[in-house]
Amino acid sequence: MQSHCTSGGWQFGNVIDGTQADYVRVLHADSSLYHYPTPEVDERALLMISDILPTAYECGVLNGNVRPGGSVAIVGSGPIGLSAVLTASLFSPSKVIVLDLDPNRLEVAKRFGATHIVESGPDAAKQVMEITGGRGVDTAIEAVGVPATFEFCEEIIAPGGTIANIGVHGAKADLHLEKLWDRNITITTRLVDTVTTPTLIQLLASGRLNVKDLTTHTFKFADMEKAYQVFGAAAENKALKVVIDHERYHAYDM
Amino acid sequence: MQSHCTSGGWQFGNVIDGTQADYVRVLHADSSLYHYPTPEVDERALLMISDILPTAYECGVLNGNVRPGGSVAIVGSGPIGLSAVLTASLFSPSKVIVLDLDPNRLEVAKRFGATHIVESGPDAAKQVMEITGGRGVDTAIEAVGVPATFEFCEEIIAPGGTIANIGVHGAKADLHLEKLWDRNITITTRLVDTVTTPTLIQLLASGRLNVKDLTTHTFKFADMEKAYQVFGAAAENKALKVVIDHERYHAYDM
Amino acid sequence: MQSHCTSGGWQFGNVIDGTQADYVRVLHADSSLYHYPTPEVDERALLMISDILPTAYECGVLNGNVRPGGSVAIVGSGPIGLSAVLTASLFSPSKVIVLDLDPNRLEVAKRFGATHIVESGPDAAKQVMEITGGRGVDTAIEAVGVPATFEFCEEIIAPGGTIANIGVHGAKADLHLEKLWDRNITITTRLVDTVTTPTLIQLLASGRLNVKDLTTHTFKFADMEKAYQVFGAAAENKALKVVIDHERYHAYDM
Amino acid sequence: MQSHCTSGGWQFGNVIDGTQADYVRVLHADSSLYHYPTPEVDERALLMISDILPTAYECGVLNGNVRPGGSVAIVGSGPIGLSAVLTASLFSPSKVIVLDLDPNRLEVAKRFGATHIVESGPDAAKQVMEITGGRGVDTAIEAVGVPATFEFCEEIIAPGGTIANIGVHGAKADLHLEKLWDRNITITTRLVDTVTTPTLIQLLASGRLNVKDLTTHTFKFADMEKAYQVFGAAAENKALKVVIDHERYHAYDM
Repeated sequence: MQSHCTSGGWQFGNVIDGTQADYVRVLHADSSLYHYPTPEVDERALLMISDILPTAYECGVLNGNVRPGGSVAIVGSGPIGLSAVLTASLFSPSKVIVLDLDPNRLEVAKRFGATHIVESGPDAAKQVMEITGGRGVDTAIEAVGVPATFEFCEEIIAPGGTIANIGVHGAKADLHLEKLWDRNITITTRLVDTVTTPTLIQLLASGRLNVKDLTTHTFKFADMEKAYQVFGAAAENKALKVVIDHERYHAYDM
Repeated sequence: MQSHCTSGGWQFGNVIDGTQADYVRVLHADSSLYHYPTPEVDERALLMISDILPTAYECGVLNGNVRPGGSVAIVGSGPIGLSAVLTASLFSPSKVIVLDLDPNRLEVAKRFGATHIVESGPDAAKQVMEITGGRGVDTAIEAVGVPATFEFCEEIIAPGGTIANIGVHGAKADLHLEKLWDRNITITTRLVDTVTTPTLIQLLASGRLNVKDLTTHTFKFADMEKAYQVFGAAAENKALKVVIDHERYHAYDM
Repeated sequence: MQSHCTSGGWQFGNVIDGTQADYVRVLHADSSLYHYPTPEVDERALLMISDILPTAYECGVLNGNVRPGGSVAIVGSGPIGLSAVLTASLFSPSKVIVLDLDPNRLEVAKRFGATHIVESGPDAAKQVMEITGGRGVDTAIEAVGVPATFEFCEEIIAPGGTIANIGVHGAKADLHLEKLWDRNITITTRLVDTVTTPTLIQLLASGRLNVKDLTTHTFKFADMEKAYQVFGAAAENKALKVVIDHERYHAYDM
Repeated sequence: MQSHCTSGGWQFGNVIDGTQADYVRVLHADSSLYHYPTPEVDERALLMISDILPTAYECGVLNGNVRPGGSVAIVGSGPIGLSAVLTASLFSPSKVIVLDLDPNRLEVAKRFGATHIVESGPDAAKQVMEITGGRGVDTAIEAVGVPATFEFCEEIIAPGGTIANIGVHGAKADLHLEKLWDRNITITTRLVDTVTTPTLIQLLASGRLNVKDLTTHTFKFADMEKAYQVFGAAAENKALKVVIDHERYHAYDM
């Protein structure tokens, strides 16, 4: 459980700022760097496995026990939710239901492999129950991070199912034990451990996992300010992930 | 998951009343009755595996992933909590910490195998943290069924740990996702499936599991009213399980 | 483990002959029949889950612990081997290597999803090692049933890997413990339990599993003799599974 | 799987000789040394977890899937076999059957927790079948390392059971697939990974695991030659593990 090492764990972007720099000192580099196969894996694809793919895969899909033939609801269709759609598909569930407030994002989810999309709203739970023949879903993945979406997962989970939390929460949620105590459900939380990095590299190298649609915009290093503006209005710009291409790095590298 | 069969599941004492009768029709008897080995297993010991032992073992110990060398806190020292102490010991945890409001019950827990006892109160969480070297417990078993005891489990659970709920809850609890979202914890609920009945019979037959101390009182069938009075004031009478001995049944049996 | 029930288990085609009849009495029908969804699932697809698909999936893929990104070798490219190719793909392995003596069958394996094919022969093991970067495979599925193919699996298994036997064997094989004792490998055998029948029905209904290419020939009931001739020379006729269509059954059904 | 690191794994006593020296350079010390709690754990007990206990526990008990209420046969009653008896008991099996050629060793096994002992010989398999009501054992642990004892495990394994190999083998064994292909069994091999070292330290510290009977003789450093003589005739001297006490080390340590 590398995420909870007493020395180590999540450092960059968490307890260490400033890694958009020419040089970065990597702590515990011996055990946190990986070789990647060239030319099979594109450098930009690797960006996706530095954070959103292992987060969605470990905290959502593996913790959520996604199985062949099962049903999965993914609440939230941002980059993490879409990464959950991509990586849930590795286990061939029968139904992948994506929920979001934004119809545009739901359309994107379909392109990533959602079998059903549902607009969040008063009758969203009813729709999920209909899609699953009244049973509810085997796996509910929370990819937003507010109490309402977590509590929604409690409403749609089938007996024996798993609610896998990915969202970063700032407030408590209501856990309706008066309804759930006898439902044989599992709830999991997780800070990504990145233990699946070798697996994800293999999946990229073999073409089993295609992440290029996660990158919607690419900017040159000199245009970094503009990149931030675009990402700052992500919904308006239909931006998922924004790549900044550091030419200088390539020059040094060669 | 027999507890959630669309036809079947928990019937007696739940959806069917009146089984304290001379004859009872058992539904789905083909798949819910077991042979038991005589004389290895005492009839009274078998009473314990009709409910409290499989409940504690499946919902608490198995769901809670009790492991050799691990630490377990059991919140609540009634018959179910004590059954959790007994069956947790099957996996040789290093620490079995039992919590309750009643010092008498805690003394009983010690006899059942608790390595540490803690009186519930304002500094109970602090005591559990001290016992576990500041880490918290690997498994927290909730055996009461009120919001306060469930929320207490959230306070003492170690990163990577499991909160296994046994309690029958009538109200929601606060789930402190703002503290737990990155702690890699698991929460489980379960209605007992009785899938471990054959295992428990084997454990009784081999003497690995000794349940005789769970029975504190025995009454004749004619004294049933008195039995209910004693059990109605269980704390005062230091009653755990009360057995009613039906002589007539034995007569018929022979 | 239904395959080893003391009463029940594999009956038709094993201990009971003669089921190509107008009526068949099904033993233990309560627990061995399933509803199937119409019109989502084609009746002919269901034929495949009466035997070869659950056999390949349970004994080969599940026992073999096929994982996303992993490498799988399937030794034997008959109907069972091809079913293993189909169902291994449900877990998105990076490499699915199929081995057989017959180049025609290997071409068929490619259509079913093999990423690599290798003709059995003196340097087959060397080829598998090259494909896997010298490591060997994470899963080796034996789908032939002779000592030579089982022993071949021992040669190509990576440290930590699993050899999952599907083949029906009539003779002992050499287990090279002098090479394998310290390799952390697992070997499994299994008589299919059909516990995955509900899963397979869901996969067929959702279109995640496409089995129509397993049927190469269809005959009318009146032409049953011809069907047996074709299947008797399966390699020559490039026959995989041969379906006999019982019109009378349909008539009764309506 | 640390035992198969491309750099690292089992070094001392395997690829590096000469560690009975005043000073030893430990490779990869960062990830292979552990703190131990004093005074809870005796230094001599720790000696046992440098090799025989994790070997028996990981390769035999964990790989063998020993479960509460299950039956275990341990073939070989040397120090490794006895360590398997001790650590199997952590999971509370109903039956722990130990087999050996030497009646003295079998008596020792009883003291370590064997519930049944069987002298190896022509009718040993028959005896094991009788002890298990004709079913065979759920777990068979091979702790000798010759073909005959491995093949014996094949004879006594129950459907669904696991043969966990610990022995270091120098020759192939016969794998009777003609009998085992449909028995749903698992066979495992393993080079100890020492991943359970922290667990074993916790078990020693809490008193759940008592290993002092594994040490039968203690010699001063000056008498090392004598220690080797005693251990060289282990059976005759009823020697299990022989400790050499290096006073000088203690002097330096303080």
